[in-house]
Amino acid sequence: MADSSWPGCAKSLKGVILDLCGVLYDSGEGDGVAIPGSIEAVKRLKESDLQLRFCTNETQATREKFVAKLQRLGFDISVCEVFPPAPAAISVLKERGLRPHLLVHDGLLQEFEAVEKTNPNCVIIADAAENFSYQNLNEAFRVLIGLEKPILFSLGQGYYKETDGLKLDVGVYMKALEYACDLKAEVIGKPSPTFFQSVLSDMGLKPHEALMIGDDLVNDVGGAQCCGMKGVQVRTGKYRPSDERHPTVIADATVDNLAHAVEVILSQRGLEA
Amino acid sequence: MADSSWPGCAKSLKGVILDLCGVLYDSGEGDGVAIPGSIEAVKRLKESDLQLRFCTNETQATREKFVAKLQRLGFDISVCEVFPPAPAAISVLKERGLRPHLLVHDGLLQEFEAVEKTNPNCVIIADAAENFSYQNLNEAFRVLIGLEKPILFSLGQGYYKETDGLKLDVGVYMKALEYACDLKAEVIGKPSPTFFQSVLSDMGLKPHEALMIGDDLVNDVGGAQCCGMKGVQVRTGKYRPSDERHPTVIADATVDNLAHAVEVILSQRGLEA
Repeated sequence: MADSSWPGCAKSLKGVILDLCGVLYDSGEGDGVAIPGSIEAVKRLKESDLQLRFCTNETQATREKFVAKLQRLGFDISVCEVFPPAPAAISVLKERGLRPHLLVHDGLLQEFEAVEKTNPNCVIIADAAENFSYQNLNEAFRVLIGLEKPILFSLGQGYYKETDGLKLDVGVYMKALEYACDLKAEVIGKPSPTFFQSVLSDMGLKPHEALMIGDDLVNDVGGAQCCGMKGVQVRTGKYRPSDERHPTVIADATVDNLAHAVEVILSQRGLEA
Repeated sequence: MADSSWPGCAKSLKGVILDLCGVLYDSGEGDGVAIPGSIEAVKRLKESDLQLRFCTNETQATREKFVAKLQRLGFDISVCEVFPPAPAAISVLKERGLRPHLLVHDGLLQEFEAVEKTNPNCVIIADAAENFSYQNLNEAFRVLIGLEKPILFSLGQGYYKETDGLKLDVGVYMKALEYACDLKAEVIGKPSPTFFQSVLSDMGLKPHEALMIGDDLVNDVGGAQCCGMKGVQVRTGKYRPSDERHPTVIADATVDNLAHAVEVILSQRGLEA
């Protein structure tokens, strides 16, 4: 019988999913900074027999642009390996015949260029940062309140981010519009099970065959666990010591950083010297 | 035994509390417009043996300024009869030794001029309108998250207002900061029972001796009823036909406008010809 506890479960793994910001790199001025050991750790995973995907709630730039940034930082990563919420949202729009009003960062607009947006019948909000003005939020509100069946999509549901100082994230504005319109938003991105499932489908794996590694206890670890995956938290990025005493989400393991997690996984699989 | 149903209860009333916007006047360009019959209705109440107070969640101007506006519209009203949230908030600050960080409309700042605001240990938000920028909301958030025991006061909790088009109100941003900081705001203003109680205290009346007349079913009528007062809704201002099918708040009466409500009250009291 397969060992289901950490790190024994590493032996039966077939794939690993990594969060980006806070695991591979820390954001900041310019492209940000790679977290020590993470470039080499990604390289080692790619050289192993494990499948590798990247799952992020990044919505301030198109997938092409932030993958290019990661490549400049030194990571061996390509666009088709990366799963952000915007392309997932575009699939949902197509499936359900929806035309969005967008309240997103200028950097993300290009991703929605080919999407029909006239006479909108839903609203999409993402990490719009400075675009979360009173005027823009009122505009999104008026679109929603004018619909017979208002539909609000939120690309992620984070509270806040630590970039250059603490900054409010999309989840806060999701709650604001939920209250204003008396509705419940549909979250596209982590921790939505549908989102994790789309990554598993791409790898052709069952949940118990995959492991998620992230710095966000609730969205990365808890979200993955809800899907039936293992979830490991790294003590980098937005990790807080209080995460290890969280009342409901308990990581399968908490490790110092990505390099350490990869070291443990690969040595368990007997691939190490 | 006193008749406790409407309109029979009018006979035993000793005081009436009126909401302002949507009951006395409709806001709009300049000073807005008096609702037909309301100037005369206020005059008739003042000439009766009933005590009269005004209870509002207005926070875009100092009390002096918006009372002056009502006087220009033709209302017989004075500053000491009007109860808005800001002076109530200042009392709470004094009682509890708190120094606020303010996220309010420029027009309200003067009200807080004498309040100590350095090294803030709480945050006050009000209907800040254009001041609800991403930058200002981040600033309020950072103050809260930096406090050992974060305290957030919200002056009212309205969803939205209808002035020149639908506009988001303070309650929406209260929900946003509640989510971001994982806390529950203290509401100062309607429908807070403490707020209604302060108006009753000023009149020296018990709740069952007073009647609230407003256009907002939840904040005016429901709030007053929670305090033990009667609550009558007028079909002006933000009244919606669906209010009369509300699942939890049922007005003691719904009348066309303030003039009609006053007509019924005074004729019941046998003061009419």
